Amino acid sequence: MIGRRIPNIGGTLRRFYSSVGSSTVLPLSRCINDIYSSPPDSNTRISLQGWVSGARISKNVAFVDIFDGTTHDNVKCVIKPPSLLPNTVKTGSSIEVDGIWTEGRGKQKYEVQVDNTKDPAAKLRVVGEVDDLYPLLKKRHTDQYLRTIPEYRWRAADAASILRFRSKVETSLVNFFDQHSFTKTHPPIMTSSDCEGAGEMFKVESSTKLGNNQTFFGKETYLTVSTQLHLEVLCAALSRVWTLTPCFRAEESDTNRHLSEFWMLEAEMAFVDKVDQLTKFSEMMIKDVVQKLVSDTDGMGSNLLESATKDHAEAMRKRWELLLQQDNWASITYTEAIKILIDAYERGQASFQYIPKWGESLRSEHEKWLAGEHFRNPVFVTDYPLEEKAFYMKVNDDDSTPAPTVGCYDLLVPDIGELIGGSLREHEFEKLSTEIRRRKMNAEPLEWYLAQRRNGTFPHGGFGMGFERLLQYLTCTENIKDVIAFPRTVNNCLC
Amino acid sequence: MIGRRIPNIGGTLRRFYSSVGSSTVLPLSRCINDIYSSPPDSNTRISLQGWVSGARISKNVAFVDIFDGTTHDNVKCVIKPPSLLPNTVKTGSSIEVDGIWTEGRGKQKYEVQVDNTKDPAAKLRVVGEVDDLYPLLKKRHTDQYLRTIPEYRWRAADAASILRFRSKVETSLVNFFDQHSFTKTHPPIMTSSDCEGAGEMFKVESSTKLGNNQTFFGKETYLTVSTQLHLEVLCAALSRVWTLTPCFRAEESDTNRHLSEFWMLEAEMAFVDKVDQLTKFSEMMIKDVVQKLVSDTDGMGSNLLESATKDHAEAMRKRWELLLQQDNWASITYTEAIKILIDAYERGQASFQYIPKWGESLRSEHEKWLAGEHFRNPVFVTDYPLEEKAFYMKVNDDDSTPAPTVGCYDLLVPDIGELIGGSLREHEFEKLSTEIRRRKMNAEPLEWYLAQRRNGTFPHGGFGMGFERLLQYLTCTENIKDVIAFPRTVNNCLC
Repeated sequence: MIGRRIPNIGGTLRRFYSSVGSSTVLPLSRCINDIYSSPPDSNTRISLQGWVSGARISKNVAFVDIFDGTTHDNVKCVIKPPSLLPNTVKTGSSIEVDGIWTEGRGKQKYEVQVDNTKDPAAKLRVVGEVDDLYPLLKKRHTDQYLRTIPEYRWRAADAASILRFRSKVETSLVNFFDQHSFTKTHPPIMTSSDCEGAGEMFKVESSTKLGNNQTFFGKETYLTVSTQLHLEVLCAALSRVWTLTPCFRAEESDTNRHLSEFWMLEAEMAFVDKVDQLTKFSEMMIKDVVQKLVSDTDGMGSNLLESATKDHAEAMRKRWELLLQQDNWASITYTEAIKILIDAYERGQASFQYIPKWGESLRSEHEKWLAGEHFRNPVFVTDYPLEEKAFYMKVNDDDSTPAPTVGCYDLLVPDIGELIGGSLREHEFEKLSTEIRRRKMNAEPLEWYLAQRRNGTFPHGGFGMGFERLLQYLTCTENIKDVIAFPRTVNNCLC
Repeated sequence: MIGRRIPNIGGTLRRFYSSVGSSTVLPLSRCINDIYSSPPDSNTRISLQGWVSGARISKNVAFVDIFDGTTHDNVKCVIKPPSLLPNTVKTGSSIEVDGIWTEGRGKQKYEVQVDNTKDPAAKLRVVGEVDDLYPLLKKRHTDQYLRTIPEYRWRAADAASILRFRSKVETSLVNFFDQHSFTKTHPPIMTSSDCEGAGEMFKVESSTKLGNNQTFFGKETYLTVSTQLHLEVLCAALSRVWTLTPCFRAEESDTNRHLSEFWMLEAEMAFVDKVDQLTKFSEMMIKDVVQKLVSDTDGMGSNLLESATKDHAEAMRKRWELLLQQDNWASITYTEAIKILIDAYERGQASFQYIPKWGESLRSEHEKWLAGEHFRNPVFVTDYPLEEKAFYMKVNDDDSTPAPTVGCYDLLVPDIGELIGGSLREHEFEKLSTEIRRRKMNAEPLEWYLAQRRNGTFPHGGFGMGFERLLQYLTCTENIKDVIAFPRTVNNCLC
């Protein structure tokens, strides 16, 4: 208020200042993650709110497990007399208890005594009941089933652990890039440029303009399929930039590794002139996350392992260890990859639907075989044929290959195939504009992009990684729809 | 490789492992931010890449300042003989120098000696020249001018500092929420629900479906205007959730505080039943950022102050200090706000175009006067009339007001007006469905939202904050278009 008085205007001024106390104490009741992070002293009173994950009544005592989704751990409450637990308490009910925090006598380190026989202040209150038709039970549900109930699926403990993991991975990446002097940027979602030159885009128009032969932006506008071109502009200002942004593809195929709306991590780096710099950087970035998983920084690993089935936990643990086992992941050229594939095919070590051939793109079956069967770990494949790749990639000075190649790479991983795609960008104006003409592309919408090469141009490169694919890979999840909160695919936009 | 040998397939295998050395060293040349963060020993050799921010030649020596956008600081290079500096070096050229890192003799703490008269290894190479028509000069350009050159604008030093700040604020918020057990979530961008019930939305359709009377998702789909409804679903699973997501409004008015595409921070908290908890939380969140600005954590403050004009820096500094000066920002009810406004109007202390009146929404002029003139600092206004607000807000049990009010709040700040809007959500099924009927809304598309109230319902609340408005406020930026990389507004979708 700095020297101003509030004018006396009569009437009641209920209160003038926010009255919730000092600004360092969170004005929320403590959540279970906070409680377990710094547990109260034993035998002190505690209030707890959350949802019931299980309840049982015996003759002299009732038990109820409370979770609130801030951690995979429940809090076990011991209820006396058992009649204190109403019949309406079922899996999914929201409740509130007041009791005494004590050291646990069973498997759990702590439990809450809600004992009305000794402690008149002990309380248990049902805040929200559940319908008889509530679709979640105490048992583990299949992912397929959970997908049919998007409004409830994340209340399942193992599903929730995926969302917590997603958040921790993002936090970890934010700090990784920040520590390395990258600026997190926000390139546009609505754009009139088509980065990949591919067809399947979502068109956007104001609902009030539709049917009027008018456009909101004065031109046709689409949802971005990749922010790379804009990221290059920002790279020219900030040297090291990255983003984690929704991207969109109107692909009509419904696979277990495609989404119409997904989050893409893209990074662009100035003064980079070797593909190895980019592959190495990508490897460091992923290993940084895996290191945190393995060392359970911030509970990242245990959050996943403890809510998974035994087999699933074992598969994840093995994958993470394998990822860190090699000092450097394998890196081969596309030409070498083709040789390996043909060789394996001819020796009968691998059977493919499509016979690998230099000059043709690697099929998903080839990618999965290379990473999953041959290397059994991530592998970088670099230097693909020019004709298979986008216009902006830097052409290699290499005449040992059947046709020109470009300085690019894909990171292939077991089960999934392509996780990352990146390249050096052609930064010389003449070369880039010649390539655009050679491809008979319309240069006019790319004027702003080309202009970068006329002014202070610089060697640079970058990559894009599907964020959901990373999560899918690290969590050994079969279907990508199970690592994003509300998946969108063709004919699928539930709630 | 874990026990597998690479089959010998003949031909040359150029290399098999990524050869960039240990995984803890970044495979990039050092950027200026890294160099200043841990400066090399004096009199050691250094390589530097970046863009020229200024150059001058005198008789015996030339000077060139290099920046690379990773920090607001330049590196000054002292060039001998002056002829080593080519004529083509101008503001904006990209260059590379090899020289000796030394302690500075002028204002700067360090400088790089590129002295070919003594050091034969000293080098200066122009990597990318600039056109004669390059639109940026050494001088400071106006924001209006910079907006006309979206492909170059962020190369201006003061503009770049805004993007770095944006990134630091995001990092800071990510860590704030993470520390408080919030899960960062990613609600959908494409949705068939209209959260606000407002009309101005962007419609989305696959470009291959348009004109075919078909839809990609089997229904009409829009870009989200707020992720709140989906966030509430996630709140029921994770208790504390937040997001920073692009949101879209097809508003045709072009003001200095509206964008068609903007990033919104939204948070939702379980087991919250008082508006004061939400206002206090919002205040803590913003103060956490401001505290880092004032204490210059991570160079956040100096990044802005040192690249601003003296007046602008002074205005920012004053604003940040004021924000921290009060232990608690003022909080008044809507009813009190109306009294204050009417009183000021009647006493002639304020002149308004619209006379404030209970039951009508606060106009922008009222909001700006309250925060900017009356409180001269942020002020929470709570408990607005039910009829002015959205269907999901919790109705207050308060019969002292002329008509029912809801448990909600806006945070108003000087110059901008509304920065945050939040509320308690009606969590009781009967009350919420009655309200939906009373408003004659179509309940069918909201079934999934209503269903939450049938199963384990719980008191909760949350808020939304325009991320660009926060940046605009903290940086004292007049136009919101200057705090987002590629602003989108009506008829404005440049590059």
